[in-house]
Formats: sequence, C-alpha cells, structure tokens
Amino acid sequence: MKGFFQLISSRELLELMTQFHALDTETAAFGNSMGRVLAQNVTAPEQLPPFSRSTMDGFAVRARDTFGCSESEPALLTIVGEVAMGKSGRDISLKSGQVSRIWTGGELADRADAVVMIEYSRLLSEDTIEIFRPVAPGENVIRAGEDLEKGEVVLTRGRRIRPQDSGVLAGLGIAGIQVYRKPMVAILSTGDELVPPEQQPGPGQIRDINSTTLAGLVEESGGIAKQYGIIEDDFESMFAACRDALAEADMVLVSGGSSVGQRDFTLQVLEQLDNSHLLAHGVAIRPGKPTILARQGNKPLFGLPGHVASAMVVFYLFVQPLLRRLGGMSSDLGLESIQAVTGQPIPSAIGREEYVRVQLIKKDGADPPTVMPVYGKSGLLTPLVKADGLLIIDRDSEGLDQGARGQVLLFR
Amino acid sequence: MKGFFQLISSRELLELMTQFHALDTETAAFGNSMGRVLAQNVTAPEQLPPFSRSTMDGFAVRARDTFGCSESEPALLTIVGEVAMGKSGRDISLKSGQVSRIWTGGELADRADAVVMIEYSRLLSEDTIEIFRPVAPGENVIRAGEDLEKGEVVLTRGRRIRPQDSGVLAGLGIAGIQVYRKPMVAILSTGDELVPPEQQPGPGQIRDINSTTLAGLVEESGGIAKQYGIIEDDFESMFAACRDALAEADMVLVSGGSSVGQRDFTLQVLEQLDNSHLLAHGVAIRPGKPTILARQGNKPLFGLPGHVASAMVVFYLFVQPLLRRLGGMSSDLGLESIQAVTGQPIPSAIGREEYVRVQLIKKDGADPPTVMPVYGKSGLLTPLVKADGLLIIDRDSEGLDQGARGQVLLFR
Repeated sequence: MKGFFQLISSRELLELMTQFHALDTETAAFGNSMGRVLAQNVTAPEQLPPFSRSTMDGFAVRARDTFGCSESEPALLTIVGEVAMGKSGRDISLKSGQVSRIWTGGELADRADAVVMIEYSRLLSEDTIEIFRPVAPGENVIRAGEDLEKGEVVLTRGRRIRPQDSGVLAGLGIAGIQVYRKPMVAILSTGDELVPPEQQPGPGQIRDINSTTLAGLVEESGGIAKQYGIIEDDFESMFAACRDALAEADMVLVSGGSSVGQRDFTLQVLEQLDNSHLLAHGVAIRPGKPTILARQGNKPLFGLPGHVASAMVVFYLFVQPLLRRLGGMSSDLGLESIQAVTGQPIPSAIGREEYVRVQLIKKDGADPPTVMPVYGKSGLLTPLVKADGLLIIDRDSEGLDQGARGQVLLFR
Repeated sequence: MKGFFQLISSRELLELMTQFHALDTETAAFGNSMGRVLAQNVTAPEQLPPFSRSTMDGFAVRARDTFGCSESEPALLTIVGEVAMGKSGRDISLKSGQVSRIWTGGELADRADAVVMIEYSRLLSEDTIEIFRPVAPGENVIRAGEDLEKGEVVLTRGRRIRPQDSGVLAGLGIAGIQVYRKPMVAILSTGDELVPPEQQPGPGQIRDINSTTLAGLVEESGGIAKQYGIIEDDFESMFAACRDALAEADMVLVSGGSSVGQRDFTLQVLEQLDNSHLLAHGVAIRPGKPTILARQGNKPLFGLPGHVASAMVVFYLFVQPLLRRLGGMSSDLGLESIQAVTGQPIPSAIGREEYVRVQLIKKDGADPPTVMPVYGKSGLLTPLVKADGLLIIDRDSEGLDQGARGQVLLFR
C-alpha cells in the first residue's frame, strides 16, 4: 500500500538545514535597520564619545587640587571660565588651582581630569569656590573613547538590530549597513473544498484558513509573505504554481493536501520540479507527521499538513528555523523556551515527540508556572487561540504525570 | 537650592497611569490585522466548520453498523457513492448497511455519523467492503460547529492579534474588525551639544543617539514614532516644539536635559503648556531618577533622562506600559520576566529600586539561568548592546549575593 512514511526525527530534519545558506545582502539606512539582520561586522569609524565629557553639572578640575580637602578644610580654587554646551573645552587650559564651570555632557577643559559636583562646592565670589569633597582622576567623566575606541567591533554579523543597536549606529554616524535580504515566502493552499476567506462557502466548502495563518507566521518571523491563493488540485496546476513560486520566492510553503492521495500529489510535484531533491518525507512528531521538505538549489519547499494546528507546529519547529537561517540568523527555534509544571497528567504515545498545546496558568510568584493542556482535534482553531505555547513530550515518554516538569515553547 | 526631587516609587508612578485611557478605534482588514489590538469582542457570525467534516480518508458510516465487527468477523457494507472534495455530502443519504467514500476534509453523507479509516477496510468488489474495526459515533469527524458555534465569542477586546487569531477571522469570513489606533509618539531631543546623526560633530559636539534609540523602542512597542529632531535649548523653542508635538501626537517624549538647569527647563515647559498637569517629578529608581510625567488631557508627556541607558530603563518601566494602555492593552510591562541566579555579588543602594543591565549566561539545561552584570556608566552605549535584560534589585535591599535568585526583565 502506498502512503506509509519513512519517518525521521525532528533532530534529523533540523540537521538537514545545514544544506541551506543565508540569502544575499542589501544596504539598509540606519533609520530603517530595526529588526534587520547584520551581514557585516560593524566597527567604530571614530571613537565615542569623541571627547571627554562630564556626567554632572559642576566644575572641571585637576583632581590633585582636591586631594585631602574636606568640610573643615575645603580647597580654595579659582574659576577661570565656563565651557558652554556644544563648545570646545580646549579653549580653556587649567593651571594648578584653577577650575572651569561645566554642564552634564560638556567637554572637559584642557588638562582637567575630573568633575566636582556642584553640590560639593560653595561659591565664595564670582571667581572663587570652596570644594569640600575630593575627586579621583576620571571621576564624573566619560573619557574620549571610553564607550568605543576607533576600529573596535561593536556589532557582529548575524545580529538582529535592537533599538539600542540602531542607537549605536546613529552615535557613530554610520549611514548604511549591509543586512541580509528578508526571505520572501510563497504560500500556496491546496484542497478542492477551499474558497478564499472573502467568499461565501457553498455546500461542502470551507474558507481557507491556512494561507492567512501562515502569512502571519512568516511576517512574525521576519519574512515577507506572498499568498498565491488556492491552487487547483491537479498535477499540472500544482506543478505550474510551484514552478512559478520558486522563480519568485526564496521559500515555498504548500499547505493542505492532508489526505493520502493529495499528499502523494504534493510529493510527486516536489519530486518532478527541475533540479529538486526530496530531503524528508514524514517526521516522528505529533502533530505534524506528514511534513515534506525538498530543495531546489538554496530554495526550500515545504509540504505542510492541511490541519492548521499541525501546520503551525511544523512552522514553529522547522519552517521558522530555516527562515532564520536564510535570513542570516542562527537556525535555532527562535522561540522563548521556559520550564513549567503540568497541572494534570498528560498522556503521550511512545515513538513520536509530542507537542501539546498548553495554556499558562500564572500564579503570582509561582516559579515555574503551571500549564494545562488545551485539547482539541488538530483541525480545530479555537484550541490554538486559547493556547500560549507547546509543551514538549519526549519520543520515549508515555506522558507526564501531574506536577512533572516539562519544557514549553512560548508563542509570541 | 533648586533641583531636589520629590521622589515617588515606581509603583506609585504606574498607578498614575490609570488617569489615561485607550485611544479611539479604526477598522482593520483581517489581512492587515496582525499585531493590532482588538477594540471589540469578535463573535462567530456563523458556525465553524459549517458542516461535519471527515478528519481521515476512508468511509463515512453509520457507526452502529460497525459495532461488534473485528478481524475475524468483519462488517460487510455497501458503497453507495463518493462525496468529492468541495461537494455536498447531503446528496447521498445512507441507509442501514450503506457507506460512502470520503476524503479528509470532506462533508459527511446525510445520516453518517463517523468515519472508518481506509486502513481498517478491505475492498471486496467495486461496491462492497469489509470493515474490521468498529468506530464510535463522532469518531474521525469534526462536527458542524465543533470549533465555533454561531454567536460564540472567539476573541476578546484588548487582545493583540496573533497569526492563529487572524486565521480565525479568515475562517469566519470576517472582513474588517475594530482595532485601537496605534499611538503616535513625538520624540524630541534637547541639548546644545547634540547634532543629527548624519552630521559630523564639531568640537564639544556629539551625535544625537536618543532619538534613534527611542524611535526603535516605540516601534517595537507597537507605536508609531515621529522624530522632531533636536530642539534648541531655550524656553520659547522648547515650548513651541512641545505645543506643536502635542497637537499632532498622542504622546510626547522629551529626552535630554539631564543637567539640573535643563531639567528645570523641561519642567517649566511641561508646567506652562495649556491645561497641563504635572503628575510626577522624580522616581526612586536607578538609573532613571530624573523622570518627569505630565499630562494634557489624555496625552502624556515624559521628560526622560539624557543618558541613553537611563532613558531606556525609563522607557521599559513606564513609557511602554502607558503606550500599551493608550493602544488598548493592559498597562503591564509587556516584557518577558524570568527568574535567574546571579553569577557574582551585585551591590545596590538602599532607598531606590535598582535596574542592573545583565547578560544571560545560558548553560544547557541550567534552570534558572545565570546572569552577570554588565557594568558601565549610564552615558555609555556598549553595556546596553551587550545586555540581554535588566535585573531588579528591591528598594530595601543592599544587593544580591552570588547565587541569589532575582527577577530579570528580558529585552526583546
């Protein structure tokens, strides 16, 4: 009989992903770099800050002039000027016993090496102050290059740019950076029972849910989703649609075809495309067993289960890591993983890794949190809507007892 | 002396936020609803699925016809037709002893109540099969309305739309939903030492880092950032810029002005704007003490510290919760919070909550993970680039011993 799978483990499938490499790169302006993935190391073209700055309002001093001073024996010093904000401190050069006024962020006067906070000084006349607390050299100062020296590597390749990282680019005046192109993902749905969401289904018909859900998942993972709609369930239409999608996109997701006949069909198309190689057909996980992975050059094609809950599990376990890899990141899951305790016994079958949809019960201060399974057939949507993540049960486990610890992958 | 703060606790500041309410709403198409926040409850306008569907390839049966059958005593049944995908099952009505062919996702024939998997049947002739495993009523079937009954609430107000949620909207054919408008946030920088990132700084000048960093944080939190650039440091310019920003934006962030003189200035402007109320001036946290919060109607104005590390802490602790509130979500932090163990002793001062930048050391299987502090003055950028999150040390704690447990807010 046809249709039996040769299952591989989820780990084996993940190892196949090393066959794929990151996409080409493009230039992003620093203002549009948030969330992009660096394709270069960023080194500081100049030192930061460019000059020694005060971190306080007060007086720039030569620290040794304050040594030994106290409330009872203040140091008597002469004010020789003020460095206004945004003006050069080099215009004033301190001699022994001299200080200059300074504001937070201002440049230290020449030969000053510390700043005395205004709170620890007393003005005696227009140009004389008493200082009653000593400062060490470097105190209340960020010295030139303390943040970054010229040539220092500040951000490394493969890093996803966070707000503070784009702040660094701004601070260094780096206008453009090389980032990996965002993977463009073609989404195809099959199934003669499907109609587009905006259409009223007739008898025996149902709206296509997977295209919208998968597009959301792709966008959430940093890809660009392009929906190709519902493809007619015959070899020629499927073959043509996949071929066209491969020409345009960096990755193709074919969803649906969960019946044995349709599955063979998807398989047949993926096998017959020019230069395509079948990498996997069936994975020992539940849900998600009928997963297909093929490749044409550096372009992966996934055959995803038709049931939306199964498709989503396969997306998080395999599609997202590969999307991350194409996008220049490490090909890990990219999901937050936490430890949790089960609130009731959860049975599982030997021989396959099980991914149980669970709800997080947050009890204040409870660590780790408790999870409860959200049961429901994998064709149902509402359990997914209620779930916060997936509890992993090992291949060799018959289940988790109530109160047992387990690992939970959190949805975003 | 001017410039002393009347500090309130972070908790008190968060309580002030109940004075603000969610923005008005707009319609979003279901295809553009990802990440938006629902301003309505979504109820199912029809049942889902609209008909009873098979979850397997096989035969739709009247379950009772299979009761008691086995390998040795199979049930002999008559095939009276096939329900093709996307066609009505109602065209076939089963009598006792009859079955119809069915595919995964297909509609059950009239009077059928279960599906026998093809694997548990044997074809004897074109229209006769043997079935050797009994099925219970409802087995291998998703019945009409099992996912959602008409009128059932499926998504509630305040929910941020995830991929599976937009899938539900697609499945129900809901074209548009009411969502909260995204808060538009005006970002103003002050400081006469600042130049825009694209400009070469002169002596005593430095590029504006805060505008870019804050814009990234706003976008990451679901807001729309509008940069107003560097505002001249005099009362008239500041007043005019704040007034204009308030007319356009839902929230105003004034960053910089960390010197006592400049701080007074920001305060003066925030106080003198039409119908503005000062809510807070100084918070007992470190870094972030010189935080100012004012409001004009439902529009918050924040005075943020000039040092980027301090501004970022204040953003995560206060600006983001308020942004979430304006955007229709719960006004919690919106950051993942985990338990961690300190890898070295971390001292802290009594009287203020401390937020220590930390790096997460992930040792495989280690639970909870270990954190190491990333020290550096709050004017420095690189500690922020290296940090994964903020370790919280209580107001009444002198610090955390090595190996002590603490709560860490994770950056995204």
